Amino acid sequence: MKTKKSANFSEWYTELIKEAELADIRYNVKGFVVFLPWSVMTMMKMYRIYETELEKTGHLPAWFPALIPERNFHLESKHVEGFTPEVFWVTEAGGNKLEERLAMRPTSETAMYQMYSLWIQGMKDLPLKIYHSSQVWRHETKATRPFIRSREFHWIESHDVFATRAEAVAQVHEDMEMARLAITEKFCVPFLFFRRPQWDKFPGADDTFAADTLMPDGKVLQLPSTHLLGQNFSKPFNIKFLDEKGESQYAYQTCYGPAISRIYAAVISVNGDDKGLVLPSCLAPTTVMIIPIYKKGGEEAVLAKCAAIEKNFKDAGMKCAIDRSENTPGFKFNHWELKGIPVRVEIGGREAESGELTVAVRDTGEKTKIHESKLVLEIPRLLSEMDKRLGAKSKAGFEGKIRDAKTMDELNKVLEVGGFARAPWCSTGFDGKQCADEIKAKTTGDVRGTLFGKDEKPEAGAVCIHCGKSATEVVYIARQY
Amino acid sequence: MKTKKSANFSEWYTELIKEAELADIRYNVKGFVVFLPWSVMTMMKMYRIYETELEKTGHLPAWFPALIPERNFHLESKHVEGFTPEVFWVTEAGGNKLEERLAMRPTSETAMYQMYSLWIQGMKDLPLKIYHSSQVWRHETKATRPFIRSREFHWIESHDVFATRAEAVAQVHEDMEMARLAITEKFCVPFLFFRRPQWDKFPGADDTFAADTLMPDGKVLQLPSTHLLGQNFSKPFNIKFLDEKGESQYAYQTCYGPAISRIYAAVISVNGDDKGLVLPSCLAPTTVMIIPIYKKGGEEAVLAKCAAIEKNFKDAGMKCAIDRSENTPGFKFNHWELKGIPVRVEIGGREAESGELTVAVRDTGEKTKIHESKLVLEIPRLLSEMDKRLGAKSKAGFEGKIRDAKTMDELNKVLEVGGFARAPWCSTGFDGKQCADEIKAKTTGDVRGTLFGKDEKPEAGAVCIHCGKSATEVVYIARQY
Repeated sequence: MKTKKSANFSEWYTELIKEAELADIRYNVKGFVVFLPWSVMTMMKMYRIYETELEKTGHLPAWFPALIPERNFHLESKHVEGFTPEVFWVTEAGGNKLEERLAMRPTSETAMYQMYSLWIQGMKDLPLKIYHSSQVWRHETKATRPFIRSREFHWIESHDVFATRAEAVAQVHEDMEMARLAITEKFCVPFLFFRRPQWDKFPGADDTFAADTLMPDGKVLQLPSTHLLGQNFSKPFNIKFLDEKGESQYAYQTCYGPAISRIYAAVISVNGDDKGLVLPSCLAPTTVMIIPIYKKGGEEAVLAKCAAIEKNFKDAGMKCAIDRSENTPGFKFNHWELKGIPVRVEIGGREAESGELTVAVRDTGEKTKIHESKLVLEIPRLLSEMDKRLGAKSKAGFEGKIRDAKTMDELNKVLEVGGFARAPWCSTGFDGKQCADEIKAKTTGDVRGTLFGKDEKPEAGAVCIHCGKSATEVVYIARQY
Repeated sequence: MKTKKSANFSEWYTELIKEAELADIRYNVKGFVVFLPWSVMTMMKMYRIYETELEKTGHLPAWFPALIPERNFHLESKHVEGFTPEVFWVTEAGGNKLEERLAMRPTSETAMYQMYSLWIQGMKDLPLKIYHSSQVWRHETKATRPFIRSREFHWIESHDVFATRAEAVAQVHEDMEMARLAITEKFCVPFLFFRRPQWDKFPGADDTFAADTLMPDGKVLQLPSTHLLGQNFSKPFNIKFLDEKGESQYAYQTCYGPAISRIYAAVISVNGDDKGLVLPSCLAPTTVMIIPIYKKGGEEAVLAKCAAIEKNFKDAGMKCAIDRSENTPGFKFNHWELKGIPVRVEIGGREAESGELTVAVRDTGEKTKIHESKLVLEIPRLLSEMDKRLGAKSKAGFEGKIRDAKTMDELNKVLEVGGFARAPWCSTGFDGKQCADEIKAKTTGDVRGTLFGKDEKPEAGAVCIHCGKSATEVVYIARQY
């Protein structure tokens, strides 16, 4: 890596994607990239971890079609308004023009809910909790960047149906907790969940809660969002059930969308360093890389020891490899640090003889001597310590970027250094939209909403940071990707 | 199940899809279905098993875009001719008409190989072995059926590049062996690999080898095919490398496409029975279903025992559930047999007391008494025995459906009862196409090609079953899906 992360995050990111071979941006459709093996191996792990969490909370997998008839879109008016401008339309197939345009799914509400109306009849069919791991396509007009924003992205969407609004609200909370368990606890990426202002909700939702993390440049990246749809879709899509009294009721719905490719962007940005990728141990494609170091004539003993150690790791269920290439040890150290391998084991002639091996951990670069007989027990401890450090470091970095701002001057200063400004605010109802629009125009800062789970109140007598009216809420403002 | 598999396979299949809730055909785009949780849970396992095999043979995963510019298609003339009639075209996006049509991938050669030409420069870049688990879209004109043939299907495609033709040929053999390991050994579906006649190759291939299994009605279903592409794509896509002498050479390529959703069709058709699904143990979404049986007042002891047994199974890493619904035990037995759960454990009041539980295995329906203390050891043995029986049964069924036919009369008879006719043949080169076309017209039988791996020769003096010219080959003829 030529560029230091702290010196220029944007250049560092672009360089990392290329040097660590994470994505190739030369594909010849604008806004589409090829995701390369090193990122895909990690994203496949992320999918499995997230899918496991979804299954633990009672979700079942299903696969819905990628194509949605145009008429389905028109059933929910805000939804069609929100998504139609971004749709890729199929208009020809099998050599003929189609009678009706088919949308490549930008999200699957309108594909799934017509089926839900067939599947749900009574209380016994509820709750219905389904997830689908898939890709979606959106003709983004904002600048695209690999993993952060592209016209094709890889995500999971879950769509749940309940008999009562209370259960739907509980689901939204469960979705948020699941995001914390996966993304913060396992992937070492902290975030806050905000209740989005009314003007920034998912098209068709009653309420939207979205996770915002901070990238190293202090700009916000939106991670999963979960939406309380209420009965907004169940009515047009006719999702009804007979309640205990035999009366027909419209169901309550939620939907949730963890975008794996975007979460990956956060994982590599938040945890990476000047040497390249730093991956939490559960996400590394390979956990241990063994580097043989020998002089001419010493190959045999060293390589035999490497192979024996590799076997030990594999028998213990760890992903391990030996770099047998002809590159120098120094080149190999740099290369596997760039790739984010958590643990490097160096084996030279002396190590092969004594069995005291040199072990380096990726995040600190610290080297320890560990006897080969203890390796399989000691490495998991080193990994778990590394994961804890990564979690603590990213948390501290995140928390240090939340600052109070009570005046526009203070807001400007906070946005300049990056991170969240916590500000008194007039209203996150539609009333407050004008203030938000004007702030956006003046500062390029976005009003992200009110913090979920902590009923933050403005101080007595506080006024809206923009209009000066009496403040009723505390909002977070930040520049976003 | 109302319909017996042996009485009317086609009706049985349709009924099974519906009753066991495997797919919903009511989605409102023609030729597209919704894959329901019970089939998706199994197909996800199939993906992982196949991906593991691909990784063992040195393949790495990557994700390529779903959209391919029209110009890419035109680079290889046979390929464009073969696939263009089936393409779904995107012509509008973001509210505008596109300057160039974008194909929803029917297969990914033309998306991947332009990138390969950027990635491959020298010997160090070879071999390149990449797989992508994805969906593809083809506007099929044949009648669609869930899993067997639809306009969207779920598959894996692997695309490999080598310096020499010999390595490419070896890869094709490796692909076939991998299919055997996964599909026959693990999924209990036998097949034969045929070298397809010249007129029936993959568009753009030098040679195509395809696995044909037999459905219970005696018709052939094509499973994975692997293709020796030679230099047919490397030339137009400019995939070149510098060899040891520093000379620029076109690379040799292969591609391979296991269609998971179609293999699933074979798994359920070949192994299923009159009661419904029979799944090899590695593919069952849940391995053990515990059925509590109690009279009023006896619930507590029985349910406590069920929970204890469930915990034992889960601790041992087995997927296990208790059917706590209010249905009768008889209803539950039928229901989980329909769903193909491999092992049922019945726990009534007497069983709860004595610890001697009743265990039924899905394929034979046989019941055994097993003491709870031995359950966790005994069930894996029962499962492994069941898997062996399924494998042996499907193999015997398959082998019994291969018959010799030396005359058109004999051919008609073989096709009537179903299965393969093994027949002397003039030529699987383009010379033989007319015979094949005429046979197809007369009998609806398809010439599947020559058996791979066994150099079958016609008897001395044998003549082509159709034209009467001297026979040079032995081909297999069957009706196909």
